Amino acid sequence: MSRVREQANLAAVDALLAADPVLVGIESAQQAMGLPSSTVLTSGPTMPFDAYTGGQRAAIIGGALYEGLAADEAAAVAAFERGEITVRGCQEFGCVGSLAGVTTASMPVVVVVDESTGNRGYCTLYEGDSADRLNYGTYTAATRDNLEALRLRVAPALNSLIAAQTEPLRLKPIMTRALTMGDELHSRNAAATLLFLRRLLVGAKQLGAELDDALDSLCDDYFFLRLSMAASKVMANAMRGFEGSSVVTAMSFSCAEFGVQTSGTGDAWFTGPLPTFEDFRIEHGYDADDIEFMGGESIITEVVGLGGVAQAAGLPLQRSSGRSVVRMVARTTAMYDITVTESPEFRIPILNYRGAPLGLDVEKIVQPTGVTPFLDIGIAGRSGRQIGGGVARAPLEPFRKAWEALS
Amino acid sequence: MSRVREQANLAAVDALLAADPVLVGIESAQQAMGLPSSTVLTSGPTMPFDAYTGGQRAAIIGGALYEGLAADEAAAVAAFERGEITVRGCQEFGCVGSLAGVTTASMPVVVVVDESTGNRGYCTLYEGDSADRLNYGTYTAATRDNLEALRLRVAPALNSLIAAQTEPLRLKPIMTRALTMGDELHSRNAAATLLFLRRLLVGAKQLGAELDDALDSLCDDYFFLRLSMAASKVMANAMRGFEGSSVVTAMSFSCAEFGVQTSGTGDAWFTGPLPTFEDFRIEHGYDADDIEFMGGESIITEVVGLGGVAQAAGLPLQRSSGRSVVRMVARTTAMYDITVTESPEFRIPILNYRGAPLGLDVEKIVQPTGVTPFLDIGIAGRSGRQIGGGVARAPLEPFRKAWEALS
Repeated sequence: MSRVREQANLAAVDALLAADPVLVGIESAQQAMGLPSSTVLTSGPTMPFDAYTGGQRAAIIGGALYEGLAADEAAAVAAFERGEITVRGCQEFGCVGSLAGVTTASMPVVVVVDESTGNRGYCTLYEGDSADRLNYGTYTAATRDNLEALRLRVAPALNSLIAAQTEPLRLKPIMTRALTMGDELHSRNAAATLLFLRRLLVGAKQLGAELDDALDSLCDDYFFLRLSMAASKVMANAMRGFEGSSVVTAMSFSCAEFGVQTSGTGDAWFTGPLPTFEDFRIEHGYDADDIEFMGGESIITEVVGLGGVAQAAGLPLQRSSGRSVVRMVARTTAMYDITVTESPEFRIPILNYRGAPLGLDVEKIVQPTGVTPFLDIGIAGRSGRQIGGGVARAPLEPFRKAWEALS
Repeated sequence: MSRVREQANLAAVDALLAADPVLVGIESAQQAMGLPSSTVLTSGPTMPFDAYTGGQRAAIIGGALYEGLAADEAAAVAAFERGEITVRGCQEFGCVGSLAGVTTASMPVVVVVDESTGNRGYCTLYEGDSADRLNYGTYTAATRDNLEALRLRVAPALNSLIAAQTEPLRLKPIMTRALTMGDELHSRNAAATLLFLRRLLVGAKQLGAELDDALDSLCDDYFFLRLSMAASKVMANAMRGFEGSSVVTAMSFSCAEFGVQTSGTGDAWFTGPLPTFEDFRIEHGYDADDIEFMGGESIITEVVGLGGVAQAAGLPLQRSSGRSVVRMVARTTAMYDITVTESPEFRIPILNYRGAPLGLDVEKIVQPTGVTPFLDIGIAGRSGRQIGGGVARAPLEPFRKAWEALS
């Protein structure tokens, strides 16, 4: 590895470590990031509308209907085809999409600011464990009602509690601690959600009727995932723009392709085929043929040393993405071969508190190892709902392309 | 092992598994268990007053002063010696003492009822992490103010929230889950405390000013230990009175001795020397010479398969009672040799969700192995405060005596 690259990588990782993600509030995507009302965001590098298929296409169309951009599916498709409605990749707006990741102007998004650099990250709120979720390609009356409840009740209630805080809502201390409590902050956020709930209550002290409205949402074990994602995004952003650095700054996939960005190559996406599953668990009554990729950007957590990269921290995931303790430890251990350093903050109890593998390095992925990152991801079914979870492997091709561009 | 004993042991463990501990409220020790105002309870099998020494003696005297039974230390000692104030072991009243375990009539205790059998268990509230704690042998104005705050503010506020519940506050689901989140429910209760907080909020829904008063206490990571103890007590009680059973139903120690009860021998305590430490961590500025035994009954958690017996569930304890993952796993694994069965409820992630070792069997401890239970305990200092925590080994002698009585 060249001396220059090594220095750049270390500088990038230092910048990530200096990031201090703080939840400042919840705003509409329009307010928060200037998203035009005629634009629908979705997971993955931007593609032409007709390249999106299956559940991701259904979710994009559902987003347009929810936003009131068309009266029905046919009209929405026509409007997309005429260019009256446009589809874009979430990350062009600093947003990260969960699974299909459909984000429209009126939807509430968490706003996380890195106090060190001022950079901002966004993510929609968790839709709950209903079968009718836009992120899993289903748009029904129940989907719409749920999205409306998030916009009209949950977001304002959470904002009241956030506004009542006397100290900044720092997320990294919560993430650091949750990692010692069975979370890896991607597929498992149970402890982080509880820690955040408590932090919100303790920081606010004035608890009124808002709490009742916020409580259902706050008490879902997946609540924190969206905060984990937005915090990861701002931390990953801190690594951007280090000339010559081969550190990965973003990963993302749509229904059709997987994309990677690196510090040394700016906003260019290097793409390749979709990830492949290593271990997964799907609900009774479904099998592997029911799995459908609908996009996903929650793998931003893997970019900062969490999720599949730190899977050994999430022992309760044995029954889904883990399968066994030995496999989980082996996966995390393998990630040290393709990363720049170890996190001095995010630590893993079963590895005797060794720091999580940090700073995915394209050079190490491509040249000596051919080992690509593990990804802890939710599994969507063709029927349009979450049917399971698992651990997938990123494809090698995007990293190879990125390496060619860097060399 | 005799067929009769085997059957009795299995029946005892089945009874434990059928126990369903529910928090019903917080009452004064007098209301809850009919504790006379002139009686001071403390950890361990009852001894004559002058057999209590050091911090445990200081805590007992402090209890008498707090209760207003004497004007000063000399007067209290005289009253104990004349028999006007009596000292008794906590467990004679169905109560379990934390460390010195001093419990007096006016102190609030959690009341946990086993819905299966109706048996009740009690434990005082956590005194917080102040240096001035009665349980660690210190009685000062700060100790008294803190005890008064527990009695006048914290207990009523918690009672309001408990009274507002629409469903019984079942503790076993919380304990089961916390075990997968880095708690072993003795030295570590961080996740259980959070899960309980959330359960209390969600179950109550009507949140008023009480919450503010309760929140400080509820948010301490050790809050749940007292619930864990009282729940363990009622579960352990479910194993009592199985004729011929060699299963341990209680363990306890005072400043002077360690005691064991078994299912087949009723209320008799079999005693021996104090536990010895295997691994421990004490605060900077102290050393092993500063350690003082002041009693402790939190080891009731070990009786039901938690704490030191399930240490491998508490990986975050590596820095105190654990030292390393390998040692923690080895300790729990050794406990399978001295227990009747494995818990189908309490499961340990790092052991691929194997059930915790359940039902300490005196026969197995004494005859083939000589292996005694591991105990995760807090460490008191001679100066009268908590100076650390560690893992100790129960002495063999009480088990040997119990075995003689059983044979």
